[in-house]
Amino acid sequence: MTDAPRDLQDLIDLMARLPGLGPRSARRAVLHLLKKRAQVMVPLARSLQAVAESARDCLTCGNLATTETCPICADPKRATGTICVVEDVADLWAMERAAGFRGRYHVLGGTLSALDAVGPEDLRIPQLMSRVDAEGVSEVILALNATVDGQTTAHYIADALEGRGVAVTSLAQGVPIGGELDYLDDGTITAALKARKAF
Amino acid sequence: MTDAPRDLQDLIDLMARLPGLGPRSARRAVLHLLKKRAQVMVPLARSLQAVAESARDCLTCGNLATTETCPICADPKRATGTICVVEDVADLWAMERAAGFRGRYHVLGGTLSALDAVGPEDLRIPQLMSRVDAEGVSEVILALNATVDGQTTAHYIADALEGRGVAVTSLAQGVPIGGELDYLDDGTITAALKARKAF
Repeated sequence: MTDAPRDLQDLIDLMARLPGLGPRSARRAVLHLLKKRAQVMVPLARSLQAVAESARDCLTCGNLATTETCPICADPKRATGTICVVEDVADLWAMERAAGFRGRYHVLGGTLSALDAVGPEDLRIPQLMSRVDAEGVSEVILALNATVDGQTTAHYIADALEGRGVAVTSLAQGVPIGGELDYLDDGTITAALKARKAF
Repeated sequence: MTDAPRDLQDLIDLMARLPGLGPRSARRAVLHLLKKRAQVMVPLARSLQAVAESARDCLTCGNLATTETCPICADPKRATGTICVVEDVADLWAMERAAGFRGRYHVLGGTLSALDAVGPEDLRIPQLMSRVDAEGVSEVILALNATVDGQTTAHYIADALEGRGVAVTSLAQGVPIGGELDYLDDGTITAALKARKAF
């Protein structure tokens, strides 16, 4: 409730639906945009419209793209023998920022969930199996989140890949870089202890 | 850095310029928008464009409007004898949410500031003087922020209004409703003590 004109209020309500913004910060954002109409507001409107029209899933890996094949799948310098399986595009971006992986990805689009009735066919699991058979893949890295649903999905995929002649690996679990033991949960400490290695 | 396609990255960069959003939350917001393309993303693009084109300052009071005169100035039920002076549209909205004021507003558009070379002509102070003379105003309420610049501006306006036959008042200062003394700054406690009243 701002007593603002109708369409201004509509804009505030839409902004408030973004994650990280509430009604108050949405009001602040809209006032800020109105002050920077030419520099930010109009370009933002155009950019939203353009991306809404052009963004699509890469046919191969499910990454966000503006073409049929995403830049990573189209890059001949990325090794084809290794596929890194992630839940979501945000996870793919996080992996790319870490810049330690030079293979290809496969974005599942979520995790298996009995509660929400999400089965393998609702994710890109069948496509992953076809890729493994077709692309001469030697290793599948399961980079799924360390949550219950993420690990359930990882186990399901590992089972499905059995007998296809590919190595199935997963990200190491342990103490994060810069992490302090005192602030870590018991599960992480136990996992790090179990996976201890020669110093 | 997300390794996202160019126009997706442009959108993320624009979103990150909104107050309250950083690079990480801008990425999350864009992925969220792409999941709700028809429900949120396209309407948001349209709404931004529409408001960028239609929003303007009310010719009378400086409030945000989509017409020459804002809904408050156009409302015959709002008393014309009292003008509440605020710095910004956000402050006007805050006053309206409190719903305790039934007069008209005057939005200055900022505060006087020697440092930023903001003088009376850069704000809507001359227009305020004209309104006071023309509209038969009996009281001007200075609802400026309790900051140094806000109070400097308040003093300037109070001086300029002297001899025009209007009462000049300001918001009471004191302990906020629900406030605990232990958490209040010394200035507020001193002000509340000085302005103490019969219980």
